[in-house]
Amino acid sequence: MTPDHVLSSWNDGAAKSEIVDFVARVTKQGGADFVPPAQRIAAFDNDGTLWCEQPLHVQVFFVIDRVKALATKDPTIEQRQPFKALLDRDLKTLYGLGKRAIFELVSTTHSGMADEEFVEAAHRWLSTARHPTFGRLFKECVYRPQIELLDYLRLNGFKNYIVSGGGVDFMRAFTEEVYGIPREQVIGSSVKTRFEITDRGGVLIKDADLDSFDDREVKPQNIGLHIGRRPILAFGNSDGDLAMLRYTKTGAGARLALLIHHDDADREVAYDRDFALSPLAEALDKAKEYGITVVSMRRDWKAIF
Amino acid sequence: MTPDHVLSSWNDGAAKSEIVDFVARVTKQGGADFVPPAQRIAAFDNDGTLWCEQPLHVQVFFVIDRVKALATKDPTIEQRQPFKALLDRDLKTLYGLGKRAIFELVSTTHSGMADEEFVEAAHRWLSTARHPTFGRLFKECVYRPQIELLDYLRLNGFKNYIVSGGGVDFMRAFTEEVYGIPREQVIGSSVKTRFEITDRGGVLIKDADLDSFDDREVKPQNIGLHIGRRPILAFGNSDGDLAMLRYTKTGAGARLALLIHHDDADREVAYDRDFALSPLAEALDKAKEYGITVVSMRRDWKAIF
Repeated sequence: MTPDHVLSSWNDGAAKSEIVDFVARVTKQGGADFVPPAQRIAAFDNDGTLWCEQPLHVQVFFVIDRVKALATKDPTIEQRQPFKALLDRDLKTLYGLGKRAIFELVSTTHSGMADEEFVEAAHRWLSTARHPTFGRLFKECVYRPQIELLDYLRLNGFKNYIVSGGGVDFMRAFTEEVYGIPREQVIGSSVKTRFEITDRGGVLIKDADLDSFDDREVKPQNIGLHIGRRPILAFGNSDGDLAMLRYTKTGAGARLALLIHHDDADREVAYDRDFALSPLAEALDKAKEYGITVVSMRRDWKAIF
Repeated sequence: MTPDHVLSSWNDGAAKSEIVDFVARVTKQGGADFVPPAQRIAAFDNDGTLWCEQPLHVQVFFVIDRVKALATKDPTIEQRQPFKALLDRDLKTLYGLGKRAIFELVSTTHSGMADEEFVEAAHRWLSTARHPTFGRLFKECVYRPQIELLDYLRLNGFKNYIVSGGGVDFMRAFTEEVYGIPREQVIGSSVKTRFEITDRGGVLIKDADLDSFDDREVKPQNIGLHIGRRPILAFGNSDGDLAMLRYTKTGAGARLALLIHHDDADREVAYDRDFALSPLAEALDKAKEYGITVVSMRRDWKAIF
């Protein structure tokens, strides 16, 4: 498949060459590295890998609007932590909480909703909500080179999965439209649900309790549970993806593990070990040792959005 | 798609007509009941719905052989319960334990194995293991009319899932070969795993602790988690499937919920409310009220295997 056309937002260089070479090898019928289509599983982190995660994960902005709505019914919310920090977009306090605590906060604010209602609400929100500094819709804050890569892999018989710390229901509100990835190929953090027969029929009601926080070693665990097959390609951008990258890379046969380095302050944001919610340190320091290919946004991407 | 040919092991009658009519309606472009392909999700129970579950679930026979192997290292196992009941195929004691306890026993005997090793071991076992009374390979104890139905649905743009109380890794050892259902479309009971970096690379090690026992209300919960979309067709054979059948049937638009009644003592086994491990009582008694179509093995199936 014509990579020069398909990966047109990628600059020529080591990263693009490795991708094109890898795909050529695993799809070459009769070749030593051939992988049958059913085994061509690719796993992508979402926040920071397929779209922006700065200054906060997109889902946090969704929760801010949810908390505002809840505050119209119960004004004391505005004065209580951590809701106050959310409404004030007090980054220092929020970063101090950490990613998991923020996800738990997210769960609390949507408990009692049916999962189908939640997906619809998120879908509606995403149709108008804009990034605070880029000004564009959040769902347009996806990286163009990655959309091309997803297309390129799909054209070559890959099945693309998202494996992200983000809430699985939140992601399912946009992955089909934005990435061409159907809901059943999305793995994320989740809350427990309960099944109830109501006058609307059987529904799944979201609980406040966390079921799975899909980060670090939980990523390969959830890949085992949901897919039952080790990916041959994985793409991440933080230490939260390292276990998934190593799980992918250490399988038998041809494997590709990729890591985005956000080093482009002009066109996006430059950060790595200093981002409290999702630091990139060990994965960057040990990339060479672990056989992980680092993709520089600045050097490897012709366009960002 | 030519149903007379495709469903050739189904007798003409109400059940076959309902299936053919349903598929025609949901695939008729521009029709009132049209469902886009991405939403054509079908969920099938496995044990007793796609293959035999009598006198014990197939996986129990696999565990018997595993316990025998363990007993060569530790002969005291043969005298300890519940292992003794397993080795003696003491059905009364095993039925008394219940399905969940047996599944937990299954987990214990395979803890410490890598999931990939387990799938290979199950695959090897299934290539020679035979049903104790039918004499055929277990993997040939699948119901021919159901294989035809899976094919027929796939031809009509459906994505078939297994949603079963059986162990997810055990099922993944044969669903691709036997049902044409890839591993990632299998939802089942699962144990917790831990991710470890070993000298063979990153592996997922099976724990003894249960993660999810995929029965009753847990079936719709797991459908929500894994698929994120309500099926439009579901097929089961016991009260353990009732929540999934009602979840499916009570969604908006055209829906089909089917229930096998094992009423064919001549060609298979006749049982319902008396099977301790997987009783069929409420689902049968309330099928009409819940809009569930009962499929009689005796009346509706021309051939069983």
